[in-house]
Amino acid sequence: KNILLTDKFWKRYRDLVKKKMIPYQWSVMNDQADIKITKERGDHRIPSEKSHAVANFEIAAGKQKGGHYGYVFQDTDAYKWLEAVAYLLTAEPDRQLQKVADRLVDLIADAQQDDGYLVTFFIIEAPERKFKRLKQSHELYSMGHYIEAGIAYYEATGSQKALNIAKRMADCIHEHFGPGKEQIHGFDGHPEIELALAKLYEATGNEQYLELARYFLYQRGQDPQFLDRQIEADGADRHLIAGMEGFPLSYYQADQPILDQKTAEGHAVRVAYLCTGMAHVAKLTHDDRLYEACKRLWKNIVGKRMYITGGIGATSVGESFTFDYDLPNDTMYCETCASVAMSFFARRMLEIEPKGEYADVLEKELFNSTISGVSLDGEHFFYVNPLEVSKEASQKDPGKSHVMFERQNWFGCACCPPNLARLIASVDQYIYTVDPEEKTIYSHQFIANRASFEQGITIEQSNNYPWDGTISYTVSNPEKARFKFSVRIPGWSAQCYDFYLSGKKISKEAHNGYAIFDVTDERLELELKLDMRVREMQADNHVKTNLNKVAIQRGPIIYCMEEADNTTPLNLYQLPKEVFFTENYEPDLLRGVVAIEADALRDEPDDADASLYHEYQQAKKQMKRVRFIPYYAWINRKSGEMQVWTRKAD
Amino acid sequence: KNILLTDKFWKRYRDLVKKKMIPYQWSVMNDQADIKITKERGDHRIPSEKSHAVANFEIAAGKQKGGHYGYVFQDTDAYKWLEAVAYLLTAEPDRQLQKVADRLVDLIADAQQDDGYLVTFFIIEAPERKFKRLKQSHELYSMGHYIEAGIAYYEATGSQKALNIAKRMADCIHEHFGPGKEQIHGFDGHPEIELALAKLYEATGNEQYLELARYFLYQRGQDPQFLDRQIEADGADRHLIAGMEGFPLSYYQADQPILDQKTAEGHAVRVAYLCTGMAHVAKLTHDDRLYEACKRLWKNIVGKRMYITGGIGATSVGESFTFDYDLPNDTMYCETCASVAMSFFARRMLEIEPKGEYADVLEKELFNSTISGVSLDGEHFFYVNPLEVSKEASQKDPGKSHVMFERQNWFGCACCPPNLARLIASVDQYIYTVDPEEKTIYSHQFIANRASFEQGITIEQSNNYPWDGTISYTVSNPEKARFKFSVRIPGWSAQCYDFYLSGKKISKEAHNGYAIFDVTDERLELELKLDMRVREMQADNHVKTNLNKVAIQRGPIIYCMEEADNTTPLNLYQLPKEVFFTENYEPDLLRGVVAIEADALRDEPDDADASLYHEYQQAKKQMKRVRFIPYYAWINRKSGEMQVWTRKAD
Ligand SMILES: [Zn+2]
Ligand SMILES: [Zn+2]
Repeated sequence: KNILLTDKFWKRYRDLVKKKMIPYQWSVMNDQADIKITKERGDHRIPSEKSHAVANFEIAAGKQKGGHYGYVFQDTDAYKWLEAVAYLLTAEPDRQLQKVADRLVDLIADAQQDDGYLVTFFIIEAPERKFKRLKQSHELYSMGHYIEAGIAYYEATGSQKALNIAKRMADCIHEHFGPGKEQIHGFDGHPEIELALAKLYEATGNEQYLELARYFLYQRGQDPQFLDRQIEADGADRHLIAGMEGFPLSYYQADQPILDQKTAEGHAVRVAYLCTGMAHVAKLTHDDRLYEACKRLWKNIVGKRMYITGGIGATSVGESFTFDYDLPNDTMYCETCASVAMSFFARRMLEIEPKGEYADVLEKELFNSTISGVSLDGEHFFYVNPLEVSKEASQKDPGKSHVMFERQNWFGCACCPPNLARLIASVDQYIYTVDPEEKTIYSHQFIANRASFEQGITIEQSNNYPWDGTISYTVSNPEKARFKFSVRIPGWSAQCYDFYLSGKKISKEAHNGYAIFDVTDERLELELKLDMRVREMQADNHVKTNLNKVAIQRGPIIYCMEEADNTTPLNLYQLPKEVFFTENYEPDLLRGVVAIEADALRDEPDDADASLYHEYQQAKKQMKRVRFIPYYAWINRKSGEMQVWTRKAD
Repeated sequence: KNILLTDKFWKRYRDLVKKKMIPYQWSVMNDQADIKITKERGDHRIPSEKSHAVANFEIAAGKQKGGHYGYVFQDTDAYKWLEAVAYLLTAEPDRQLQKVADRLVDLIADAQQDDGYLVTFFIIEAPERKFKRLKQSHELYSMGHYIEAGIAYYEATGSQKALNIAKRMADCIHEHFGPGKEQIHGFDGHPEIELALAKLYEATGNEQYLELARYFLYQRGQDPQFLDRQIEADGADRHLIAGMEGFPLSYYQADQPILDQKTAEGHAVRVAYLCTGMAHVAKLTHDDRLYEACKRLWKNIVGKRMYITGGIGATSVGESFTFDYDLPNDTMYCETCASVAMSFFARRMLEIEPKGEYADVLEKELFNSTISGVSLDGEHFFYVNPLEVSKEASQKDPGKSHVMFERQNWFGCACCPPNLARLIASVDQYIYTVDPEEKTIYSHQFIANRASFEQGITIEQSNNYPWDGTISYTVSNPEKARFKFSVRIPGWSAQCYDFYLSGKKISKEAHNGYAIFDVTDERLELELKLDMRVREMQADNHVKTNLNKVAIQRGPIIYCMEEADNTTPLNLYQLPKEVFFTENYEPDLLRGVVAIEADALRDEPDDADASLYHEYQQAKKQMKRVRFIPYYAWINRKSGEMQVWTRKAD
């Protein structure tokens, strides 16, 4: 399939990646941007003087003198950047940009060692420690990120050089890891190589890569002491990353075999990368037990451990999951990367089985907690995406030192900005899947485009989503092939939607979240009208922090209230029992959004000189207009308070 | 004055100290108790294999071989224990106990060096580093604790030996610190020596001690770089306590001179010890600026930064204050020591100026967040006193690793248990003050006792407080002296109380929280009836976490709801607009408490299989009986959930 994006919303974001994020990030990685790099939390050990990501390759390649700087996984910033460039070049050639990227590929090739190994930290600083401390080293993680980039760049430009680097890395890993007598019976502390090897198998057809991906998945947690034995042999105190000593094995999803893991535990990004690899390998190897494990973890994450924005990771300690229904709004992690990775996981699940739930979560991620990670100017980023913020708390509560109240130029750990760039640049890959056996084209996401499929079939999807709920499809089927066109009905609209076939309203039931149309004619004109009314959403009442609160949702968009529009403290607002929302598309607000307003009750703030505790008195309330804007666009005007969850009168 | 405690409530607690806490703590400090010592939070570096507190003295005295074990301030466990013993011996002689304590004094004397110095860690492990790293060393803090103990033991038993140790320590410190050319122009990172030296001045009349206390107070923060220059000279990485590197100078109240400190910042115990010393020195030196500084910090703490239980310290990071109105119930610190220290501070403020507010806070501390630190069996302790707890959160959220859901046998840092012991054992010191100039005896606390004063005056206070609000005083004045008897009206009863003079109801206004009676007759029979109705208390609505919630208070006692009595999750309970509380003294419950019950609304818990988010629906509520017990007595039956703040229908 071949897809041309025509979507106003996503084209703007893809242009932002191309015109701002990519050049900006390149200048940062080359230490040419005049910016302040932020430590991602209040920890003085975080390397934040410079990026040095490109220089590390120069040094590893012997083209420059000096030491390595940054985290052991600093290389991956460049790899994700390269992958994003590849997707941009797929959409639209750009000789200038390709030249820059080609030179980066050349540099990476020069830095790669004869045996295929490439992690600049170990080449420069500790060649004798290669593969000897996988709990912290991120070596397979780093090379996995290159493998993804190399494949994407090869597919975009035909660069065999880029693909060869990837294959040589995979071959190097294949030589060192596996069940063989001389091999390391281990795995990386940070999953990622599994999903990369599955992609490499798809790109090359070489089954040994798929087998290796499978090996890493099943080896994980089989020998729980493996990682610590390595640490002991390497020297307990010779940390590659300070402060990780106390994390349990579950942080690495390494405490038990993956088929035994019942709940999502530990570092959220690790979990989502692992699940992405599991789902991909499950599909490629028709491994039902593995798919069951994916579904188990999916159900636990989505059913018990996900924020309404799509964010995951409830605590900053280890950027981790905690326990079911523990979803604090102001200390959460909700790393941008974790939402990007959940998008990957959802996509792989959809590829196994088209279920509306998978596409719903994917949509939630795409329109909320992924893109909230970048400012509308494309040059400021969130690592952590909070659901409730006050400047004072972030500044004065050390337990919230990770909660930024403004997007930052860059981070000591800069995993998120290029990760988001590659997701946005490849958003076209998330719109459709095709099931050749069932002869079905699935439309998962409402992102306007023109797509061509086999047998000359084309689909033109047009809409003004997410602001407008009318989705139009024109399916052309010149060869009059028989196939099914299956359109997702979002969970949030499942109770109320209308289909129009050639302008005539029809009634159509959905199964598993999809309405299925048999196509035999040359042309199908289909219109779907979704229920875009403003909804007050409520959390399961086991979520302590959201009791008596609602979050505003319209279509796929989660809304928030922020200081730029409303009087602080925001938590003194309360939506009355009966609320009348007004919705208005404002083209000049935040690059064009539907803003929502309502009359709310507001408690009069207590007098600052009053005593801290007093006998209960019913609150004095005033009616006051309150305004909600899309969560993803928060804090693009002035910094200050923000909250997603608003009190609701009961 | 001479006081004989007759109070049922406090005699039980003092007996607990004598019969359980003191022998138990002695066995722990001698490593003879078969217990598991708990790390006070999830930090693998915390020393928790044993106490070793007594052994450290043995080794320092050369009577035993080996190394120091535990924190650098491990000595203070023994000192606070000794001080508690002194107060017990003051109340009631005990030859057996005194013998044990005498032997400890002998051991301490043997460990003390010729120049008066005594901190076992430095004697054993690092004599060359004495006074060279005051940011972390706790040397003056440790000796200050001995000075307090030594004075108390001298006053209880007449032991000159005990007092001499104290004087020699103070002389050693006096030699090394001060404005002199050869002296260290510095102060300890942990305040405490200031209050100890003020006491030593009172015990000895030696003005040089008072002057030195004053020096330390005013030197603090004058040269903000002092502590870090020492660290640099000593070697930046040679930590005495790991993990403190990142703390700002405000953690130590050392960022600015004390007169410039407008808000309570940093480590809560440090702040309260510092304020205690400031208030004591302000009184002794008639230093109004210093008293103003005390009032400023008092107002900030009590008006903006104190939990309703009396707990202080809103975050576990540095056991610190954060900012005004930031009072999270489930991640707070509320260290037992901090409440003990607030009792000290309140006492010193009362000694400067009798204000009901000081006595109210003192009462709050005594009846709530201090004694919550010990189990009813006297052998289990809280370091941290939470206002909301769930087992699962404490076990699975690393940000709550410090929040224990059961009291523990002992801690790696065992500051709290003996601190609480010395407070309880000396509670009689908090009941009255005498103002000789105003010829006034103030009754601050409702703790039954028989007290004798000058001129043959005696006061017999009898009551069944805190369960009953009738307070009876019989004042005998055989010499018919003219004086004033001033009785505190608690803030919580200020709107409604009755006095009976010789059985006749009289009306009596209170000034500054005190009702003043002129005494001229031989005998005064006075009865005060306080308003003991159950109150629903509310926090200032800037306290985010308590919005739409109430805490139950009766008399001075703050109540909580716990799993032993109520169905979990507790936060699904909601008190209706109109509540009818029943109160019942139950002699067999928790060693005798008034329990409170009411009909509450309860949201039906959502189905575990339901989706995590759904459109708003008004909660289905059921009426359900709910029971509250005094906060101090929580988790003495079975472990589980607890909460102080309950939702209130609005
Ligand atoms: Zn990231
Ligand atoms: Zn303590």
